[in-house]
Amino acid sequence: MTDSSTICAISTPPGAGGIAVLRLSGDQAFSIADAVFTPRRKGKQLSGSPANTLHVGTVTADSELIDEVVISLFRAPHSFTGEDVVEISCHGAVYIQQRLLQLLIEKGARLARPGEFTQRAFLNGKMDLSQAEAVADLIASGNAAAHRVAMNQMRGGFSREIGNLRQQLLHFIALVELELDFSEEDVEFADRTQLVTLAREIEVLLSKLSASFQLGNAIKNGIPVVIVGETNVGKSTLLNALLNEEKAIVSDIHGTTRDVIEDVVNIHGTAFRFFDTAGIRETVDEIETLGIERTFSKLKQAQIVLLVVDLTNPAGLVLARINKIRTQLDDQHLIVVANKTDHGMEETIAALQQLPLLPNEDLVFISAKSRQNLDKLIDRMCETISPDKIGEQEVIVTNVRHYEALTKANQAISRVLNGLQSHLSGDFLAQDIRECLHYLGEITGDITNDEILGHIFKNFCIGK
Amino acid sequence: MTDSSTICAISTPPGAGGIAVLRLSGDQAFSIADAVFTPRRKGKQLSGSPANTLHVGTVTADSELIDEVVISLFRAPHSFTGEDVVEISCHGAVYIQQRLLQLLIEKGARLARPGEFTQRAFLNGKMDLSQAEAVADLIASGNAAAHRVAMNQMRGGFSREIGNLRQQLLHFIALVELELDFSEEDVEFADRTQLVTLAREIEVLLSKLSASFQLGNAIKNGIPVVIVGETNVGKSTLLNALLNEEKAIVSDIHGTTRDVIEDVVNIHGTAFRFFDTAGIRETVDEIETLGIERTFSKLKQAQIVLLVVDLTNPAGLVLARINKIRTQLDDQHLIVVANKTDHGMEETIAALQQLPLLPNEDLVFISAKSRQNLDKLIDRMCETISPDKIGEQEVIVTNVRHYEALTKANQAISRVLNGLQSHLSGDFLAQDIRECLHYLGEITGDITNDEILGHIFKNFCIGK
Repeated sequence: MTDSSTICAISTPPGAGGIAVLRLSGDQAFSIADAVFTPRRKGKQLSGSPANTLHVGTVTADSELIDEVVISLFRAPHSFTGEDVVEISCHGAVYIQQRLLQLLIEKGARLARPGEFTQRAFLNGKMDLSQAEAVADLIASGNAAAHRVAMNQMRGGFSREIGNLRQQLLHFIALVELELDFSEEDVEFADRTQLVTLAREIEVLLSKLSASFQLGNAIKNGIPVVIVGETNVGKSTLLNALLNEEKAIVSDIHGTTRDVIEDVVNIHGTAFRFFDTAGIRETVDEIETLGIERTFSKLKQAQIVLLVVDLTNPAGLVLARINKIRTQLDDQHLIVVANKTDHGMEETIAALQQLPLLPNEDLVFISAKSRQNLDKLIDRMCETISPDKIGEQEVIVTNVRHYEALTKANQAISRVLNGLQSHLSGDFLAQDIRECLHYLGEITGDITNDEILGHIFKNFCIGK
Repeated sequence: MTDSSTICAISTPPGAGGIAVLRLSGDQAFSIADAVFTPRRKGKQLSGSPANTLHVGTVTADSELIDEVVISLFRAPHSFTGEDVVEISCHGAVYIQQRLLQLLIEKGARLARPGEFTQRAFLNGKMDLSQAEAVADLIASGNAAAHRVAMNQMRGGFSREIGNLRQQLLHFIALVELELDFSEEDVEFADRTQLVTLAREIEVLLSKLSASFQLGNAIKNGIPVVIVGETNVGKSTLLNALLNEEKAIVSDIHGTTRDVIEDVVNIHGTAFRFFDTAGIRETVDEIETLGIERTFSKLKQAQIVLLVVDLTNPAGLVLARINKIRTQLDDQHLIVVANKTDHGMEETIAALQQLPLLPNEDLVFISAKSRQNLDKLIDRMCETISPDKIGEQEVIVTNVRHYEALTKANQAISRVLNGLQSHLSGDFLAQDIRECLHYLGEITGDITNDEILGHIFKNFCIGK
């Protein structure tokens, strides 16, 4: 798992710019840098220079001047990787970046694999695994909410929470295992009532963490918003209006499914992932068609459902439509978007105004065409999940791997609880507790293997 | 022209990466950085820290943690700009880069204009104007030749050459002006024969520099290569074969003219800009058509002409074709590309083998289809302008502005020479010499104004 080679990579974004930075990490970082670098002050070797210093000079290859550079020195263990690290800041020409990289490799460095600097930081004990994973999330974060969650995780917030759980479980298992040592005497060191209380607390914590994954995933990948409504009620106009909101930044990520168009939009620091079901035939008459089935299956994945209804339609039709959708929803937040306020039928508007709303339902009257009340709709959407809800300290699970481990740990602790209730013997209890500890250890990297590491770091960018 | 504000910008290439670097320069650089930065070691202010040191810590805005960063300190005058400079190395998320930039602006920095860091380096005497211009060329350089020329210019090679010319001219004018002081006595301090010799030397140097612009421009923008030949001789196959050469890096810059396709390809460190005249009707019969005129006008701009002929055609036709093109060429290098070696007529091959070649002509037998002898053709092309021809010390003009100033300086020195031959009085000579000095000063920036500076730096990237 450990590897003594010195690795190098271009760490700044790809392409040309004012400056670019190459990073070298490993035992040979200083000597390799010394082999290519001529300091402006003659005779000043990097190897002999103090940590955290800057050095101006030139890089030459076969008597050809490659660039004038500034070198930053970091000494083990006080560096990002925990190893000796040299950062070379050069002019940002692609040609210069490539030549420098080539030169470092000629002098004995090896091109770093994706995420290898962070992987070394983990292997050298600079951070645990969940913190290392947060580095990639941090770099990918495109909005305030995702940034805050990733930053909290990188700073160890998540690790602390898991660490607390493990501490409680270790106390738990210590008592149970003590009983096993004295099993012939049939004593109970651990008060079973207290154990049940503790296991329940842990179960609640694990459930809370697991439950936060829906929010975490939404923050990371965008809150799934499905827009439904009959044809010609203004779905597309509404989507375009939302996408064109001044504050919205649109990225054109196209959907993986063929029938549904996806668009991710940052609104007030939160990413919303819109699924436009436009193009799917859906009418009240043709309830059984394939299109409807697809729309309804999409609804299951939504966190927010925007049901667009047309105020120029008769009240009965509109109310029927709303009730039809309501029957398809579980705990998704439904926002009824009553469109075409400027041409609406009085009877329909009145009927909607009297519509009783559930706690997870909203009703907004808009005109998508004239962009009237769009801000109110956006406010309602943001209220369902505001980044302000994410406190600095609150831990939110954003990672599928963590979610799966938490789910398995939760199953194990549930078995412990069942075992306690059915007076299962201590050795069976201990086995389930150990399994729970194992899965929590997988999250922090206390328990890991090359396969898990390989899988985690392959999605990093090179140079981090 | 000077401006005491502190400027900031993202200096690394745009987009997300492992790390990104923001740069601050100006009197307030340290205090602005101190306002946003919390060092890991408490109480350590950047303002009080020594130059060329690195500082690890966090950046916080309104109690929200933006990032963990590493700060590099450079103190005036020992920095790129000659001012106090702070570089902030952060995680390369676009969100983080934007937030940091916003924060620096909130704290009193101003977003830098394109090239403003380099402009300040010039205004603070860290480099002359031609060196500052070379910084942009260096960043844009995409191949070994362009890199070498820009690096030489940035390191002051060009400035030295111009400086030497100015020194000689200053000696020249000193003598002439001394004569003017004693004009009533009608003495000649300057030996006219020596002056003529000196002026001729300067004229030769200026001509040499001006002449290098064709090469310099080719290095910077790609050597113009025009491919001509009748339809169905294999022009397109040849171009595609060249573009697909393993070592060739193709960038799809499309032509500004409608009929000619341009492709820039890096081969062995040199950029070639191919103009494919395919699509222009050109046959021996229709010599007067518009297409032919366009092809011929394109030929004038070429440095290398690849004339593709078809070996399956009769010898007479092929030789006539070659002679036709020869009459259209001035000093362009003509490479006759005899294609279809695998099906060629013996008579045609023999005729070509006996063809007498001029010094700037080559003949290569190839099969574009089976890629036979393509390497030989590439070798011939590279030999006409090899990057090895560009010595470290040899000065090559790549900049249109410099070329124009050199041309004007050259015209002035020619007038001096004419004046000397027609025994013009000293005051007229002095005027022309001063004009020559003026234009040389414009190159180095000894003589400049806001308009020139604005024009030069507006093409830089922001952050440099």
